[in-house]
Amino acid sequence: MDFKSDLRERKKIVDDAIEELFKDKKGLQRIVVESMEYSMKAGGKRLRPVLLLEACKMVGGNIKDAMPFALGMEMIHTYSLIHDDLPAMDNDDYRRGKPTNHKIYGDGIAILAGDGLLNLAFETMLEKVNSNPNFFDRGIRAMHLISKASGINGMIGGQVVDLESEGKEIDIDTLDFIHNHKTSALIEASINAGAVIGGANEREYENLKTYGRSIGVAFQIVDDILDIVGDEKKLGKRIGSDEYNKKSTYPSIYGIDKSKQIASKLIEDAIESLEIFDEKAEFLRSLAKYLEVREY
Amino acid sequence: MDFKSDLRERKKIVDDAIEELFKDKKGLQRIVVESMEYSMKAGGKRLRPVLLLEACKMVGGNIKDAMPFALGMEMIHTYSLIHDDLPAMDNDDYRRGKPTNHKIYGDGIAILAGDGLLNLAFETMLEKVNSNPNFFDRGIRAMHLISKASGINGMIGGQVVDLESEGKEIDIDTLDFIHNHKTSALIEASINAGAVIGGANEREYENLKTYGRSIGVAFQIVDDILDIVGDEKKLGKRIGSDEYNKKSTYPSIYGIDKSKQIASKLIEDAIESLEIFDEKAEFLRSLAKYLEVREY
Repeated sequence: MDFKSDLRERKKIVDDAIEELFKDKKGLQRIVVESMEYSMKAGGKRLRPVLLLEACKMVGGNIKDAMPFALGMEMIHTYSLIHDDLPAMDNDDYRRGKPTNHKIYGDGIAILAGDGLLNLAFETMLEKVNSNPNFFDRGIRAMHLISKASGINGMIGGQVVDLESEGKEIDIDTLDFIHNHKTSALIEASINAGAVIGGANEREYENLKTYGRSIGVAFQIVDDILDIVGDEKKLGKRIGSDEYNKKSTYPSIYGIDKSKQIASKLIEDAIESLEIFDEKAEFLRSLAKYLEVREY
Repeated sequence: MDFKSDLRERKKIVDDAIEELFKDKKGLQRIVVESMEYSMKAGGKRLRPVLLLEACKMVGGNIKDAMPFALGMEMIHTYSLIHDDLPAMDNDDYRRGKPTNHKIYGDGIAILAGDGLLNLAFETMLEKVNSNPNFFDRGIRAMHLISKASGINGMIGGQVVDLESEGKEIDIDTLDFIHNHKTSALIEASINAGAVIGGANEREYENLKTYGRSIGVAFQIVDDILDIVGDEKKLGKRIGSDEYNKKSTYPSIYGIDKSKQIASKLIEDAIESLEIFDEKAEFLRSLAKYLEVREY
């Protein structure tokens, strides 16, 4: 099979598990569960859960064991998008071509839907661990590293600095902080948690960790480039215009070509770190290449 | 010692642990940690952590083991208040006589501070469990029941129905749903988690559970009565006026006297369930009585 069908197949496994998760909606509080479900099904790429399941499988683990954690990562990612889109934050009306959560359900329910997803992420993981005593050790390690990656020293930290930088020119250290925390932290944690759940040895874990860090940062740089290329196509804006200087990005600091070079180098590092896995790493290798060339 | 000094002493142990938790604030994201600290130190009664530590101690446990969970409960309670006070929810400018979080830090940071506290609750509990393998079993059970109590089938569920009921007359089933979920769920979970961490046997656990449920509901009824008595003192409003019919409460449905009777019966049940603990339950007995007569 080619990479695209491999990716579709893996994404479908996650989509099916999400379908299952929201199968029974009942109780007086049903509206918030519908709101959570709306955003969970609003066209996500499922990158984080796919990475988690793949890392688990590669080191000999069972993806059934890993699914509650994969769902947890996707719920944490999704809650952060719901809160990010609120009028008090980025104030976005659309995401992936669909109305944002608060445009449909109102700001109050959107806040609670975000809270509900963050909470349900831990509830879902704990449900799995609580019912499997011989899974305690791996489960706790995985939850612990996920909680650190999603908190104030991880994703939330990045969101805070991003929010505070709105409309300002920032230096490269601040930009790196935002990238490393807001986006990379969860991508890295997905790979790391998958490795832990699958029972990786230290060498496997360290190599997968390097892979996760490299694609995490590359992913964000490529996103920044795509934003500009996309905007240029749509609106005829040019880099260097005031519009782009409002908030610094890799391309606005380094230019597009240098940014592409940095991303390429990271993807190279990522692929190199997979060497010890031989053909078992085929999917992650292709995924790294795919992230680099996505659309530009 | 009398009950009031016992309570003060226990509250101080929690306050000191909170002080310690926010001792080192660093990094570019410092503002959100300051915002979290502001609300965590804005005059809470520490009811939930005090209950958790006491339940643990009563069944022979060590309160040092229980502290990360006690802090977790207080963080979850505090985050729910920060989000509840936002303009998109209750739109409150003051809480406990101090400006609400978003009035000081802005809506965006207040949303992230709430997210940060919910996440840090799990991070703090997982940190403890992850570093103590012989504590896995109790730690996971406690976190699992806390996560259920704070989620869409617990506290968040109650907040949703409360938000949806704003400005409407609601029936007693809806009101009970809000009480049981929005407030009682966390109070019950505090007692239950403390019992689990302390190593309660089944009989101890069930009795403490009854205690938690009874005072949880009583607490909310008393709160509703105090709201009215307080408002009457301040504004000369009367029950039965349009102001009170906007949103139903125990007193608006049953009247103040009947509501007091219901609360008294619940407190009686709570105290009865402590019988097996003899003199070890002195503090929880006094606390139940104290909750009933707080101020009216």
